[in-house]
Amino acid sequence: MAERPPARVKPRLVKGFRDIMPHQVVGRRRMTETIRSAFERFGFVPLDTPAVEHVDALAGLGEVGAKSLFRMESPEGEAIALRYDLTVPLAGLVAQYPDLPRPLRRYQIACVWRADKPDPGRFREFVQFDIDSVGAPSVLADAEILMAMEQALGDLGIRFLIRYSSRRLLNVLLRMAQVPEERGSAVLRVLDKLEKQGPENVLLELGDGRVDASGDRIQGLHLPASSVGTIGGFLNLATAAGRSGEGERTPREAVIDGLERFLGSAEGGPEAIGELREIDRYLRAAKVSDERVIVDPSIARGLDYYTGPVFEATLPDLPRYGAIFGGGRYDGLVERFLGVKVPATGASIGVDRLLAAMDEMGRLESGWSVARVLVTVMDRERIPEYLEIAREIREASLNVEVYMGEASSLRKQMAYADKVGIPIVIIAGSNEFEAGTVSVKDLREGKRREGEAATRERWVKDRPGQQTIARAEMIATIRSLLEED
Amino acid sequence: MAERPPARVKPRLVKGFRDIMPHQVVGRRRMTETIRSAFERFGFVPLDTPAVEHVDALAGLGEVGAKSLFRMESPEGEAIALRYDLTVPLAGLVAQYPDLPRPLRRYQIACVWRADKPDPGRFREFVQFDIDSVGAPSVLADAEILMAMEQALGDLGIRFLIRYSSRRLLNVLLRMAQVPEERGSAVLRVLDKLEKQGPENVLLELGDGRVDASGDRIQGLHLPASSVGTIGGFLNLATAAGRSGEGERTPREAVIDGLERFLGSAEGGPEAIGELREIDRYLRAAKVSDERVIVDPSIARGLDYYTGPVFEATLPDLPRYGAIFGGGRYDGLVERFLGVKVPATGASIGVDRLLAAMDEMGRLESGWSVARVLVTVMDRERIPEYLEIAREIREASLNVEVYMGEASSLRKQMAYADKVGIPIVIIAGSNEFEAGTVSVKDLREGKRREGEAATRERWVKDRPGQQTIARAEMIATIRSLLEED
Repeated sequence: MAERPPARVKPRLVKGFRDIMPHQVVGRRRMTETIRSAFERFGFVPLDTPAVEHVDALAGLGEVGAKSLFRMESPEGEAIALRYDLTVPLAGLVAQYPDLPRPLRRYQIACVWRADKPDPGRFREFVQFDIDSVGAPSVLADAEILMAMEQALGDLGIRFLIRYSSRRLLNVLLRMAQVPEERGSAVLRVLDKLEKQGPENVLLELGDGRVDASGDRIQGLHLPASSVGTIGGFLNLATAAGRSGEGERTPREAVIDGLERFLGSAEGGPEAIGELREIDRYLRAAKVSDERVIVDPSIARGLDYYTGPVFEATLPDLPRYGAIFGGGRYDGLVERFLGVKVPATGASIGVDRLLAAMDEMGRLESGWSVARVLVTVMDRERIPEYLEIAREIREASLNVEVYMGEASSLRKQMAYADKVGIPIVIIAGSNEFEAGTVSVKDLREGKRREGEAATRERWVKDRPGQQTIARAEMIATIRSLLEED
Repeated sequence: MAERPPARVKPRLVKGFRDIMPHQVVGRRRMTETIRSAFERFGFVPLDTPAVEHVDALAGLGEVGAKSLFRMESPEGEAIALRYDLTVPLAGLVAQYPDLPRPLRRYQIACVWRADKPDPGRFREFVQFDIDSVGAPSVLADAEILMAMEQALGDLGIRFLIRYSSRRLLNVLLRMAQVPEERGSAVLRVLDKLEKQGPENVLLELGDGRVDASGDRIQGLHLPASSVGTIGGFLNLATAAGRSGEGERTPREAVIDGLERFLGSAEGGPEAIGELREIDRYLRAAKVSDERVIVDPSIARGLDYYTGPVFEATLPDLPRYGAIFGGGRYDGLVERFLGVKVPATGASIGVDRLLAAMDEMGRLESGWSVARVLVTVMDRERIPEYLEIAREIREASLNVEVYMGEASSLRKQMAYADKVGIPIVIIAGSNEFEAGTVSVKDLREGKRREGEAATRERWVKDRPGQQTIARAEMIATIRSLLEED
């Protein structure tokens, strides 16, 4: 390589990809650690699968998924692709190792890749955090996914609302409303707009259509008035469940009672109600509050995929982020890929979306550096002594940097600390070394004083936040300054 | 998707890829957390770059690297590939964001992909953990990489030996031994065999060749005897440095003194010696022991890449794993890609190789489950009560599972706990609930007693490790059993 002429390549990201800056990596790690710890509290174990899969194993994704694959060829000439989600690899894993414990409670935190059109905030590479119970036919497993999710989101210290339902419920509704089978999907697509458009607009779209805010005509499905009426009654129940907005939530049990009255003895009704009730019973035993987990009969979530309970979570303070996690029971999915029926339920957290939301809520620390202390270099001959100071600070389990740039002035070294967000600076020159002291400066102090009516001259004279102390007191002084945070 | 017939796909891994089982994921996480924490102690910050890169940015990898790329096409039709290492993306990042702090101390833990021929233990997807200081021209930055590595490997609690040298040293040696420039690479390739073949064989290969253990003739380079003699003297110094084997190491300073005498005033000698000495001075200031970090003048490490200090670490107890980390200064690399000269130094840990070594040393916990307690289900009607027990255990920050399989017998549920490695089992039926008690069984106790001369009948009668206690004592009992570990 040495003989090559320098080849200048314009550095640029592949479209839809991005670099993740330190405070985001740190924020993401803290977030996934909190979630991981919550899931392990329930016995979920980690399993990692490769980033690439055989394309034939991904065929079950359907046309939309297939179009979104990053395809390539293995050195053996096989068609392979970057993984699209974490569920298909799990299905493959379950089929490949028949001796895995059942039920298999596993979690996986990993990147997935989709060759979709990128949008602001929508990337082609993003992190998912999935939990699934495979081989657990009981609704208890669904309830446990909800409990684990409630624990995880609760541990993050954010406001959230988890909603659950059963996909059976909407099937019963379609039958009650006498919607012909071939129009079911169209109706569900309209119902999916409930959150954004509100019940009035949804009902108009089910009937004769409506005119939207920009004056465009939106075609209606032209269902008979009786059908629209039945669906309207159902949506009233959904709204009464306290699915959005503030105020007291309707207890899960009351919502289920209302649904039971509404459905009467409709075909499939008792089974759907039974599922909701059993989940509620388990949630109550686990003391999961009616405020955090509600029954919302209107959630639809990809009905061609789920077979039983479905769930999702939103952030009441940031509704535009949509569902930050979603999932449900998918008893047929593993079979579709492998020809073996395996009951399974699970949920997926959109880590990057949740992280962006937490960033917007001011829940991520910012700042470039992880170091809390910078040891400045006043005299390059004394670098070994600065290294000793740093070693001492490090042994106290504090993150510390020795200044390693080319600036020799103290002012520039402090500007560096300020730029990267290091709050404490250690200054030592001949005077300090001879006297067995160091100077410790809290860079935040000057900023605090900016609020006061202090003149620039006074700062320089006062040296705000700077104190010269005995070397033996250095660690205690740094600790107490950092604790003031 | 619902109308598709079930398509059966044989589940199989892409060649050279693998699934990572729970105890390995947990082991890897603990290992990377330990290393991460050590690096952050020195102020290294995390930065994540995308898994895919433009192929033109990877062109500087040379022919070998270019052949190992997993290539694909972006939706925009550009030639892209999975990243081959973490250094090229770093170079791109540095060029892309001119405002990044300098020096940039960054770490990255990420998968890299190489379409090489897979071998046992050698995969096409593996994790690297890189640290680099970019924009730091001083040898202090190299010394810091060594300190951070020493801290990280020390924190892992394993025996290791870090060796450093300077690539300048071998350049001086080649000049002293009057090796023609065009033969330099060939000589260095032979010197690279020192660890495996020993100095005698290396010297034979530099001269007239040798016959190996299987009787095959290995061609020699036919250097003149005087050249071989000079190189031999150098290798003696390397061996005397205590580069392998047990016993006391020669202090770094003494090795450097010997090298200085050997090189005399050869061209480039003082610069090479100066580098080694300055690093030693910084290491001593940071109290890095002569036992853990030695000077080994024989290490060569890809001489067409490094420009100054080079370093690597091996495991004295498992020499066949080779270098578990390696690195050095590469002042020319960023320039080669970007046309801008940027001094840089860094090192890369082979996470999976180190993990395999730690596994072989018995340093990874085994066992499938992360849960320490299983709540058995004796009576399905009482599931809410079992959930309450589990919630209580979980609130004590212990990982706990409620049994969710289909087995109803206690024996089978305990067999499940045993299989997945859960040590403590909670048993509660009508008797216990009425009496306000639970039974706590330590599954490890039965195994311990197998060592004693107990009959099977006695175990059943004694119920080893099983005790019925008041419900209020449950947490304390579990805790004390787990602490016995």
